[in-house]
Amino acid sequence: MKTKVLIMAAMIGMASAAKAQQTKDIKLPQPEMSLEATLMDAFKERKSTREFSEKELSLQELSGLLWAANGYNRPEEKKRTAPTAMNRQEIDLYVFTKDGIYLYDAATHSLKQVSATDGREYIAAGQDFAKDAPVSLLIVSDMNRFGSNDQNARAMSAADGGMVSQNISLFCAGAGLATVPRGTMNKAKIAELLGLGENHILLLNHPVGHKK
Amino acid sequence: MKTKVLIMAAMIGMASAAKAQQTKDIKLPQPEMSLEATLMDAFKERKSTREFSEKELSLQELSGLLWAANGYNRPEEKKRTAPTAMNRQEIDLYVFTKDGIYLYDAATHSLKQVSATDGREYIAAGQDFAKDAPVSLLIVSDMNRFGSNDQNARAMSAADGGMVSQNISLFCAGAGLATVPRGTMNKAKIAELLGLGENHILLLNHPVGHKK
Repeated sequence: MKTKVLIMAAMIGMASAAKAQQTKDIKLPQPEMSLEATLMDAFKERKSTREFSEKELSLQELSGLLWAANGYNRPEEKKRTAPTAMNRQEIDLYVFTKDGIYLYDAATHSLKQVSATDGREYIAAGQDFAKDAPVSLLIVSDMNRFGSNDQNARAMSAADGGMVSQNISLFCAGAGLATVPRGTMNKAKIAELLGLGENHILLLNHPVGHKK
Repeated sequence: MKTKVLIMAAMIGMASAAKAQQTKDIKLPQPEMSLEATLMDAFKERKSTREFSEKELSLQELSGLLWAANGYNRPEEKKRTAPTAMNRQEIDLYVFTKDGIYLYDAATHSLKQVSATDGREYIAAGQDFAKDAPVSLLIVSDMNRFGSNDQNARAMSAADGGMVSQNISLFCAGAGLATVPRGTMNKAKIAELLGLGENHILLLNHPVGHKK
């Protein structure tokens, strides 16, 4: 009897360890500041690309990409590479990979797993090229944090999202990666997966990968 | 009689020459591609600054700024440093200086004078710091060119405008210039000066100057 209880306890322990592993967060390495591209190179190379190789992004590449997109460039002030209206910092960045969906946390420069689903097909929403990218970034406006959700607030926040999008495009241009900003996606399905409500606007996504 | 006619013709000639000078366009020099800042430097230095010295921007600085903001980086394809939804290229960039207001023409990399008024006070709209900047850029969505003007179209175009805004912020960060994106401005007065209607959205402006 005692043995049976111990075995069951061990099994429960194993199950929760497995669960912890399934929903594990990812600490990103420090972004590489030694990327050679000049700013003007990045403006020159910026373009929308809809072809991706299957090669995974390294954690180091993902680190640079997310930091450039919306990371803290002045950590002591909690301020970022992209501005927001009234410094409301209402823009969230989700990372879709084959292993799940993660929320980028700028304060700890890490990824918090939100779902273990490979949601890239909902980002692609029928456009196959977008499914080929190893990573897709999703830009979301949290209008709760913005403080209002009228038409003017939505336009201001859409502009804020566009700023993050351009950081992504320019980082990719400078790092030799391929990306394109897209409005197309299965918003209902993604909102359900991420537990987002009507005050969250799924603005743009960016498949990102190596060039084909 | 003949003399009188000749004198009048000469006077008319002088008047139209004076008018041509008043409304003169500005051909910009080629943008300097040798700016030293790396892309990562620009992300690191990106911040909103609300203090400007009175020192004018050189034409060379203005050239780099406008090209980076929304210039052609692939002239043969008429494609730009910033993407737009469906490549509608609906974003216009106006330049406000003490000498007047100009529309940036990416195809010829030049400024077309739209008004001889110093409109910077309408950009400032009571926020004195913004009046100190020698140049203000205004980002406008032309929804005629976008092809629709409903709430979704406005959000998409606001994101497009945000991308141009971030190009401006990053160029300034890389070139050691000061700027801040602002939603505040006297929209009615500016629309009147520029002859813009309800299908033009005055989205954001950027005072730009040297650091104080």
